Parts: sequence; structure tokens; C-alpha cells
Amino acid sequence: MYVKKTIVKKMLKDAGADRVSDEAVTALMDELNKFAFGVASKSVKLCKHAKRKTVEESDIKLALQ
Amino acid sequence: MYVKKTIVKKMLKDAGADRVSDEAVTALMDELNKFAFGVASKSVKLCKHAKRKTVEESDIKLALQ
Repeated sequence: MYVKKTIVKKMLKDAGADRVSDEAVTALMDELNKFAFGVASKSVKLCKHAKRKTVEESDIKLALQ
Repeated sequence: MYVKKTIVKKMLKDAGADRVSDEAVTALMDELNKFAFGVASKSVKLCKHAKRKTVEESDIKLALQ
């Protein structure tokens, strides 16, 4: 788990939430981790596809398209 | 900043990256924070729209649709 519960809860509070259910925090945390690791994995694939060893900004940008 | 550089770098390494440029880490970090705070904000709006004080899992799910 990269993005943790405490961070997700803080994010929701900063976004204006009065209270936050534990299920909501878990649901958002799971989604964020899935999205983040998905983009990271795609970026690495694009980097290898371009026969490079270093993941560059262009890999991230293309992965996000 | 909720998702930090060290976490993003670890994520890319775990996804199989040999090396990662600093620009790539920054680009992914910025995107993840934008996406995450966007979903959080939308969830809070949906919660208030439903005249509740507590953000629930249904708000998160709907915000992600």
C-alpha cells in the first residue's frame, strides 16, 4: 500500500469533509493505489518498449493518455 | 502534497523500473495528487448534495464513475 489511510483521510478533510466513514477512506485508498500503480506499470512498459533503462517524463505522459 | 516523491519512486521501482528520472517522478507525483484531490473534492460535494455530514463509500464510488 503506497497511499495510506491517514493521508486519504487528511485529503478528504482538506477537501471540506466534516466527517468521513472508515469505509469511504478504505474505498478511496484502494482506488488511488490501483490507479497509481496502474500508471506506474504502464510507464515502465512504455519505457522498456522504447528500449530504455530510465523511466522518463514522456513515459508518464503517454501512460496517462 | 499528499503523495510524496519517495513513494512515487518506490512505486515505479516496484513496477519494474531500472532507473527513474527526477522529472518522471515529479510528473507522476503531480498527476497522482491532482487525481486524488479531484476525487476527494467531488466526493465531498456529493456528500453535501445528499445533505449528509459524513462522507460515505457511496460518495467515493459515485465520484469515481
